[in-house]
Amino acid sequence: MSFRTAALRAARHTNAKNRLPLARASTRAYSTPPSRPNSSSWRQQLATSFAVGLAGTLGYRYFSQEKSQVQCDGAPLVEAIDTHGYPWSPVDALEKDDPQNPMRIRMATWVKSLQDHIVNTMEEIESSVEPNSFSPSPEAPKFLRDTWIRKEGGEGSSCVLAGGRVFEKAGINVSIVHGMLPPRAQKAMLPDHPSLPEPTDTKPFFATGLSIVIHPRNPHIPTVHLNYRYFEIENPADPSKPVTWWFGGGSDLTPSYLVEEDCVHFHKELKKACDKHDEKYWPDFKEACDKYFFITHRGESRGVGGIFFDDLTTSSPINQGGAQPKTQEDLFNFVKDASGAFLPAYVPIVYKHLARTWTDEERRWQQLRRGRYVEFNLVYDRGTKFGLHTPGARIESILMSLPETARWEYMTPVGADGSNSPEEELQKVLKTPREWV
Amino acid sequence: MSFRTAALRAARHTNAKNRLPLARASTRAYSTPPSRPNSSSWRQQLATSFAVGLAGTLGYRYFSQEKSQVQCDGAPLVEAIDTHGYPWSPVDALEKDDPQNPMRIRMATWVKSLQDHIVNTMEEIESSVEPNSFSPSPEAPKFLRDTWIRKEGGEGSSCVLAGGRVFEKAGINVSIVHGMLPPRAQKAMLPDHPSLPEPTDTKPFFATGLSIVIHPRNPHIPTVHLNYRYFEIENPADPSKPVTWWFGGGSDLTPSYLVEEDCVHFHKELKKACDKHDEKYWPDFKEACDKYFFITHRGESRGVGGIFFDDLTTSSPINQGGAQPKTQEDLFNFVKDASGAFLPAYVPIVYKHLARTWTDEERRWQQLRRGRYVEFNLVYDRGTKFGLHTPGARIESILMSLPETARWEYMTPVGADGSNSPEEELQKVLKTPREWV
Repeated sequence: MSFRTAALRAARHTNAKNRLPLARASTRAYSTPPSRPNSSSWRQQLATSFAVGLAGTLGYRYFSQEKSQVQCDGAPLVEAIDTHGYPWSPVDALEKDDPQNPMRIRMATWVKSLQDHIVNTMEEIESSVEPNSFSPSPEAPKFLRDTWIRKEGGEGSSCVLAGGRVFEKAGINVSIVHGMLPPRAQKAMLPDHPSLPEPTDTKPFFATGLSIVIHPRNPHIPTVHLNYRYFEIENPADPSKPVTWWFGGGSDLTPSYLVEEDCVHFHKELKKACDKHDEKYWPDFKEACDKYFFITHRGESRGVGGIFFDDLTTSSPINQGGAQPKTQEDLFNFVKDASGAFLPAYVPIVYKHLARTWTDEERRWQQLRRGRYVEFNLVYDRGTKFGLHTPGARIESILMSLPETARWEYMTPVGADGSNSPEEELQKVLKTPREWV
Repeated sequence: MSFRTAALRAARHTNAKNRLPLARASTRAYSTPPSRPNSSSWRQQLATSFAVGLAGTLGYRYFSQEKSQVQCDGAPLVEAIDTHGYPWSPVDALEKDDPQNPMRIRMATWVKSLQDHIVNTMEEIESSVEPNSFSPSPEAPKFLRDTWIRKEGGEGSSCVLAGGRVFEKAGINVSIVHGMLPPRAQKAMLPDHPSLPEPTDTKPFFATGLSIVIHPRNPHIPTVHLNYRYFEIENPADPSKPVTWWFGGGSDLTPSYLVEEDCVHFHKELKKACDKHDEKYWPDFKEACDKYFFITHRGESRGVGGIFFDDLTTSSPINQGGAQPKTQEDLFNFVKDASGAFLPAYVPIVYKHLARTWTDEERRWQQLRRGRYVEFNLVYDRGTKFGLHTPGARIESILMSLPETARWEYMTPVGADGSNSPEEELQKVLKTPREWV
């Protein structure tokens, strides 16, 4: 069964089972996607990548086209989706890596290439959908690509899509910054980064990262977040030997409605990327994610989790006790696999629910969930807090993660305890994180 | 000219000058308000209040019905509004005060009575408007009145209106709590409250306050906030002689569109309440307000200010050097006047703009401004932060201050520098606070 067939079947089924009258008269129909590079052409590219010695990073998988079961909620199984040969793997990103370069250059090259690949994929999704009331132009919505220079050193590239057919707001940002870090700023990092040497004087630093937040319109498509970063305190005498360095990152899923199969799929993809490198990674980083993305004042998680890690170096406790010591290259390969798992983990879930319609009540619940998203990001998120309190920081980029619209209701009846509703079902899971795989 | 005449004239004028096509076909017409207690009846009540020795608190004024100029923006002058005899003064609130009681009882009685009076006034405003698409029921919307008991000691009363004809979300909350304050919690209060004795052991405390946030639907009616509170460390041996005590409070206005005359009016009312008690109060508390309600990461104020003070005791520096020492009674009288100035400062502005229509673009700008309101409250507001980090706090009441809906746009073109728009005009004022009176 092609994705089109599955999606239309799903849409019919969904209409029939909607709990409330449909808010909109017309179903936003899923149209056949425009032609994309076919499987053989990307396989050729993949072969090139292998040839330049990057086999270690190629753990991405493609979804089988054979399975055609339809899940109980009326949508096709995530793994049954026909990808039409579009590469989930950031093949071009892999090609650009040059092991001769120092890690800061390699990581910057990786995040820029991955940014490009993910932006292109999201634009593909936009163009696969007919114009609708949110974006009536016959031309498919494109990201606004915007670069900036940091006066104190470095640059950034923000790719933001607002008012899309599918995505209400999506930001895919890269920053590559360097400069001098005063002892006070180093001290502030110490609690989270025990590998940092005791600060005595101002030190040159370098930091690069990719940060993604995607808020779709459809309440049945989850919000997703990714952040991967590399940080080093430079050694002015020998730029190839930083005083200290670490990787951090992760990605997590924030649905408004719980579809267990989606959660399992998302976590499976991340687990696979972790397991390839160290069996300890998955349980540890999954737990760290549940712990980090927790809205303490609500007593609930922001979403259904994923992975999260910080201060990952070769001397991190988790990297000790293996058969042989981990190298920086090992960790970079892990970071490439984990961040490269973003598309295969998320995009099939988007395609799966793309054709579903929604009711005003479902939209209202999504807006309430987005209110919680805002609460987490403004009250707890370390990156956001650090950014907001950094004089001269680019506020537009820092707050790109906030949804376009959000809602707060006093004592809302939506999803109330005992309502036995899909909304309450989600809240139960948010209060007690699950093991999905 | 009656308010009805003025309002209809204003509505006609506004329709003609709208910069963009009207978002809604029909003007929400202002209808003659239902009969209210007439002037002579509340004057009678007032006389009763004088009789019980409360003359000192009766600085409220009524707007002249003689003036009938129409301001350049097409709305009637704030001071020209016919009040239809409805009392701005919380007459009933004044009546309930008994000087024989300890201050904690008197302040609790005051905030409860003022809460009642303000809730009733807001319901009067709702009932003065015809049913509309937001609230189509023929019955005028009422506040949801909800009381709660604090397990550890105390009670609260939340009055919240959602989905009104005029008010999108309004919360008018009172809390009266007591219990034991561990040294750690006392230490956390020290920086803001120098009058607190050096914490050595757990101390009994009492705190009561009134907190108001009103978010109207109409982008031409400003959001308003008020908070007044009294705190004491109790003396178990003699409840009439607390170890320490202070008052805090203030109110401020947050318009989406700048109407200078409104700002002048709002500030004038507050200045009058301040000046009656001490000439130093107004300049000091006005400046403190501009300083407090500042969104540092945006480099702009949340709104156009008002007054703000904290830790106000008889020994506060501002209360030194007068002809004779201030008493607790003096400060309570000031608090009553300042909080009692809420209705005459705000309600005429609501009535003034009630009949104005708005465009989608104006609503969009209002939503963006509400995003800033959320940013301030979640990132900077001490009360909110304290509440969010207090285990067992009632989150619904703490976050009642958030608007029902808010919006964030990346690099929004609305109000951009150089756009020469009313939106830019507001932003300029937010970046450079003005002296309004």
